[in-house]
Amino acid sequence: MSAEQAVVEPAGPAGPADTKTGAWPHRHLLDTDALTWPQVERVMDLADEMREIVERRRPRSDALKGVGVTNLFYEASTRTRVSFEVAAKHLSADVVNVSAGGSSIEKGESLLDTMRTLEALGARVLVIRHAVSGAPYLVAREFRGSVINAGDGRHAHPTQALLDLYTLRRHMPGGSLEGRKVVILGDVLHSRVARSNLWTLTAAGADVWVCGPATLLRGFEAWAAAGVGGARQFTVTSDVTAALRDADAVMALRLQQERMAAGLLPSVHEYAARFGLTTERLSLAAPGCLVMHPGPMNEGVEIAPDVANGPRSLITEQVAHGVPVRMAVLALCAGVAAG
Amino acid sequence: MSAEQAVVEPAGPAGPADTKTGAWPHRHLLDTDALTWPQVERVMDLADEMREIVERRRPRSDALKGVGVTNLFYEASTRTRVSFEVAAKHLSADVVNVSAGGSSIEKGESLLDTMRTLEALGARVLVIRHAVSGAPYLVAREFRGSVINAGDGRHAHPTQALLDLYTLRRHMPGGSLEGRKVVILGDVLHSRVARSNLWTLTAAGADVWVCGPATLLRGFEAWAAAGVGGARQFTVTSDVTAALRDADAVMALRLQQERMAAGLLPSVHEYAARFGLTTERLSLAAPGCLVMHPGPMNEGVEIAPDVANGPRSLITEQVAHGVPVRMAVLALCAGVAAG
Amino acid sequence: MSAEQAVVEPAGPAGPADTKTGAWPHRHLLDTDALTWPQVERVMDLADEMREIVERRRPRSDALKGVGVTNLFYEASTRTRVSFEVAAKHLSADVVNVSAGGSSIEKGESLLDTMRTLEALGARVLVIRHAVSGAPYLVAREFRGSVINAGDGRHAHPTQALLDLYTLRRHMPGGSLEGRKVVILGDVLHSRVARSNLWTLTAAGADVWVCGPATLLRGFEAWAAAGVGGARQFTVTSDVTAALRDADAVMALRLQQERMAAGLLPSVHEYAARFGLTTERLSLAAPGCLVMHPGPMNEGVEIAPDVANGPRSLITEQVAHGVPVRMAVLALCAGVAAG
Repeated sequence: MSAEQAVVEPAGPAGPADTKTGAWPHRHLLDTDALTWPQVERVMDLADEMREIVERRRPRSDALKGVGVTNLFYEASTRTRVSFEVAAKHLSADVVNVSAGGSSIEKGESLLDTMRTLEALGARVLVIRHAVSGAPYLVAREFRGSVINAGDGRHAHPTQALLDLYTLRRHMPGGSLEGRKVVILGDVLHSRVARSNLWTLTAAGADVWVCGPATLLRGFEAWAAAGVGGARQFTVTSDVTAALRDADAVMALRLQQERMAAGLLPSVHEYAARFGLTTERLSLAAPGCLVMHPGPMNEGVEIAPDVANGPRSLITEQVAHGVPVRMAVLALCAGVAAG
Repeated sequence: MSAEQAVVEPAGPAGPADTKTGAWPHRHLLDTDALTWPQVERVMDLADEMREIVERRRPRSDALKGVGVTNLFYEASTRTRVSFEVAAKHLSADVVNVSAGGSSIEKGESLLDTMRTLEALGARVLVIRHAVSGAPYLVAREFRGSVINAGDGRHAHPTQALLDLYTLRRHMPGGSLEGRKVVILGDVLHSRVARSNLWTLTAAGADVWVCGPATLLRGFEAWAAAGVGGARQFTVTSDVTAALRDADAVMALRLQQERMAAGLLPSVHEYAARFGLTTERLSLAAPGCLVMHPGPMNEGVEIAPDVANGPRSLITEQVAHGVPVRMAVLALCAGVAAG
Repeated sequence: MSAEQAVVEPAGPAGPADTKTGAWPHRHLLDTDALTWPQVERVMDLADEMREIVERRRPRSDALKGVGVTNLFYEASTRTRVSFEVAAKHLSADVVNVSAGGSSIEKGESLLDTMRTLEALGARVLVIRHAVSGAPYLVAREFRGSVINAGDGRHAHPTQALLDLYTLRRHMPGGSLEGRKVVILGDVLHSRVARSNLWTLTAAGADVWVCGPATLLRGFEAWAAAGVGGARQFTVTSDVTAALRDADAVMALRLQQERMAAGLLPSVHEYAARFGLTTERLSLAAPGCLVMHPGPMNEGVEIAPDVANGPRSLITEQVAHGVPVRMAVLALCAGVAAG
């Protein structure tokens, strides 16, 4: 199974568990499409409480004391792995890190055998990053504890979308995204961050625009026409001026050079010139437009250094919010698994 | 010193410390050949106690509080490294992981210098995996604390043999292997698991059969003729039908493709066809015959997927039992080192 | 920025904070050149206290409880990384390890972006090793917590110099280096250890000699003429006999083969023959001359095995002292950052 074979298209709406209540029925967090809006708000509220713990002189809660949390990373990552590690340790979990380098993964053991091994060794929460879209779903079907998707191929990155939402809400007047214009700019086609954000941002009532070269938007017109969850509209365009005009927030996406098949783009320079988020382009947006990026950045490509480090940038805050948001997700999912 | 140069042949019996008592005189655990049967039973009994700790909501004992345990892995491993890490943490040890990648090992520092460095940094227990047979013996000669062999070349893997024994005993009626037919099937020649198991299984009174292609059994006829420990018989054969007939347990071994010199086997497919543990072959065995594998598995090569995941398979249980068995070994050896 | 571009020459003296008091004003430890002699003594005294903690049955203090310490290693290291990890854990810090392998560093993220990410994830102390001289200075300019330089290019390795000093003082009669002849022998040009030691050893009043092939001493004559800190003299020579004669201590340096441009040395064998620290050469030194090496050693090249493992060798003790010295540095710097 190659990284490109198993692209999982975002599935339908969350189903009967939907509607009015914020009760948390999810043992796993595989994508944001499984969350009702009240459940999303439940995460936001709990993340507020977790942030208070994080800001203490000694940031420690006993919520996951004695619970084995294993970070199983098949792709390199600093921020996401450390973020989950720190979040789990703040909750007093017993954390084990396993990466593809330096493990029997190199001996060709199957993903499911690795899961069964880690489960037998005491993992009750498995945080998994994998290059193959859908891999965490495969694991969740058989794992007895909780599976948290920390990024699978080009499919989903639900905790990133939740921390993006958390960050946006803290900076929007009134804490609401209702009617706010939010632009996702860049290599949308290969972005799990974009896919997961589309669910939460449209659910939050934002006016979502997706913008990039036409070759990097393939399939999104059809999705926009159908609506997210079969209902919620968003706009797809290659016109960066139209996208940025009066925007309240822009998320620039990393140009995934390593994944890009030849022919999708003429060159990185051409991309930077046409779609890079510069101060000039940002002047089209609403005053105080917020700037975000999931990291790691290619500064000078998808985002100019002065924008990345400028006064509107929430990029570092996104990283910081990752910890309390992941603490909330870990606590909620592990609570269901234990119950 | 290459991986092939320093093959250490299993030594003679344990010497004067032998006989009737389960007292634990061993600062190191280098191979099972150093253990008397009462000492093996001591590990089994303590592992029972440790398993109760593992199954608690908060699996934690203070047995190794403040004790530095360093996992020094020159070969990649998930299950063994994580198993020792989890076991040591359950005992409240201070665990440090060092792997060949990302360390001064890459700068060509000698094994003994690395040992002295880790000792000076506070390691009191050194868990070592190394591609060279005998490497842990070299280290144990000079290390002031305890050395636990976590696999050396093709020589020994004593904690694997102990957890295999522990698992078998829990599933044999009456908890005894006396007279039970246990088959070790596969690439015996390159298997440290097979060598260590031969000591414990014959000591347990099992009727042990070793089976594989003749090229992968070289030297074992001579050993069988001499007897394990100069006394205990086992059977060597390439006749898989004879081996499996009425077997009470079968351990399939990983086909160590990476170590196999050209010419030992015609092909992997040929091997799978002639020696792979399939449902059909397993039907020769006694009803309820137990199936084991030390992992990681090449499913479809030495073991068929339906056998590996079938109702007789103890493979996941082997992994789970690794934690309490290693807790017992760590506690026993560290106790001697501290005293 | 290549590893060779940004060589930072040792800066001038520490400035106004200098002189009589041992008060600790430093949030960062980037090099020993920033330390006044009373501040160096402050580290030595606190290291004595820390050593008492290390030698306890349970080596644990609450000094850094709840403080996030991140080891960010862009170069492979066993001893330094484990030493900082153990030191931080002894102080009850929350330790995270990040290495260049297996991280977004591989995706080309800039050093400053990585720093900002780790800061946002809760790092309050950043221990950094980097191949580029000056890299930790760049990070310290923007990091809100403490930066500890764990080795940058050929520039500085301050905690190594402090542990070397600590080790020497414990073995010099009266605990003083005043007037003692200390020789730094070998690849001085590429050695961050030599540079950092020159500051502390001359400040301690030692008669410091730097010795190696002329090609590996370039620039040091000029420095010697100007004096360390514009004042303190040392001697530069390629005459190994003159250097070793009546020496009270010799530090052999690792021959950094991987960094050596072609043409600096005829061959490793030639180097070993002319500058290797052998028993014969050591007989020129004062009786009881102390032998040191920062590790990892190339035994048989810059140091003969019988010297490295002989009765005058303090090499293992250097490693052991690294833990209490780093505990002292961590506690002092983190204390300033928190205040």
